[in-house]
Amino acid sequence: MRVALIGVGMIGGSLLAAWRTAGLIESATGWDVDSEALRSGERGGLIDRSSSSVADAVAGADLVVVATPVGAMAEVFRQMAPALRSDAVVTDVGSTKRDVIAGARAALGAALARFVPAHPIAGKESHGVAQADAGLFAGKRVIVTPLAETDGGALATVERLYAGTGAVVERMDAAEHDRIFAAVSHLPHLLAFALVAAIGAEPDGARKLGYGGAGFRDFTRIAASSPAMWRDICVANRVALGEELRGYRALLERLQQAVDAGDAVALEQVFAQAAQLRRLWSGNADGR
Amino acid sequence: MRVALIGVGMIGGSLLAAWRTAGLIESATGWDVDSEALRSGERGGLIDRSSSSVADAVAGADLVVVATPVGAMAEVFRQMAPALRSDAVVTDVGSTKRDVIAGARAALGAALARFVPAHPIAGKESHGVAQADAGLFAGKRVIVTPLAETDGGALATVERLYAGTGAVVERMDAAEHDRIFAAVSHLPHLLAFALVAAIGAEPDGARKLGYGGAGFRDFTRIAASSPAMWRDICVANRVALGEELRGYRALLERLQQAVDAGDAVALEQVFAQAAQLRRLWSGNADGR
Repeated sequence: MRVALIGVGMIGGSLLAAWRTAGLIESATGWDVDSEALRSGERGGLIDRSSSSVADAVAGADLVVVATPVGAMAEVFRQMAPALRSDAVVTDVGSTKRDVIAGARAALGAALARFVPAHPIAGKESHGVAQADAGLFAGKRVIVTPLAETDGGALATVERLYAGTGAVVERMDAAEHDRIFAAVSHLPHLLAFALVAAIGAEPDGARKLGYGGAGFRDFTRIAASSPAMWRDICVANRVALGEELRGYRALLERLQQAVDAGDAVALEQVFAQAAQLRRLWSGNADGR
Repeated sequence: MRVALIGVGMIGGSLLAAWRTAGLIESATGWDVDSEALRSGERGGLIDRSSSSVADAVAGADLVVVATPVGAMAEVFRQMAPALRSDAVVTDVGSTKRDVIAGARAALGAALARFVPAHPIAGKESHGVAQADAGLFAGKRVIVTPLAETDGGALATVERLYAGTGAVVERMDAAEHDRIFAAVSHLPHLLAFALVAAIGAEPDGARKLGYGGAGFRDFTRIAASSPAMWRDICVANRVALGEELRGYRALLERLQQAVDAGDAVALEQVFAQAAQLRRLWSGNADGR
């Protein structure tokens, strides 16, 4: 299988590494806006050849993996559409699904039936193809959100390739996917970025940050993630994220009143519900 | 040195364990509202004797360590005051300092000069004296917030005992302490509790929580902490915490507008500031 990787970063590079390790692909061509990413991908033996255009990269491919930030995917689909082979399978790794599907629907024409939207639930704060890791997906979940018109063969190909990385594949409706990850991924990232930015903006912010302990380190770890990637995700999933954020802010308003009034009962009620759920979740999460 | 430990939990037990390991104390008497905590402390060899009242526990002590939740400390000071030896040194391990000092000031009379307010910056989510760990304080910071009237000898005793646990002692004004930890400890705990509670309260909350990944695990780890302890801390430090929460909510309101409007520039500005600060902090934090 000949692969074209559009967007040569940590996630796309890790997929190629996992597939090469499993002997599932023959060759890979890469395209990226950043020529240094291409050189790094070649040096690491992940891509065999770099292309100067999306159309050139996908021309001979059996499988096209779109692994750019989600905000760039609609344009990538437009550029690849005229050059896709009639039997090429296309998939993406975006953290949001409805907007990516809308971009594919607008651009791919008949090839839409061989587009399999997917979201591997795996990541790390470090980015760049030099951070690629063949073991990144082992034991992790991959959500695929097929459309009504998705071809069964294309879906089977993508699911088989992910199974080959050690990931556990699960199908889901795209809208539900976006609601779930707005709550458990996109909102926490926004909140962590906001906390570090809020403290940093205070006159004595730098001094305060110097006293952060282990709890602060864990809570803000995701605030070291790529600002451009998370900007894109928050914009792409703005409807579901906006709703989650509104609900969260309503609870914070209640907690502000409880703090200001010294209302221990109201605070403990919320804290106790959370602690019970978090311990339950921790017991179920088996290291995912 | 004979120690009385008022509140036999993870932190107080860890102090006794560290001091016993370092050969700094001769004996320890314990008092707790929970008689099972006393039995557990005796079984673990941390306390030699349990008392049925605070007054009885402190009667023969050279050093009294108050390690109850901060909300109970004012009452503990009232109960110990008549029974304290005239040369006994008193210290606490509370996460807030102004309210603890106010409680001590109201109750201790002349003994206030030998009260050394302290806050060891060390903890874990698990609690109870069975979780005591002699190595808990090694390399961690302890903030002491002496009063204008604090006796130099009492201060030296407490600082020497903490140095013996491997901790790094630092002096600070109590009001500044409370502002700093409102920002980097109390607010993050409140926010983490609130996120888990908010998601859990949604109709599909349990299903959503099932998809939390590594980022969610880190972000919400502190939401498994003791609800009663954090309720007390939030009430005790309500002025500084209320102010931090207000500033944070103002930033969230701006971010809500940016999300709703799909304003990528406004989002990236905040995210980029945060990511830069967080990476800087991470580089400086050397594992604290």
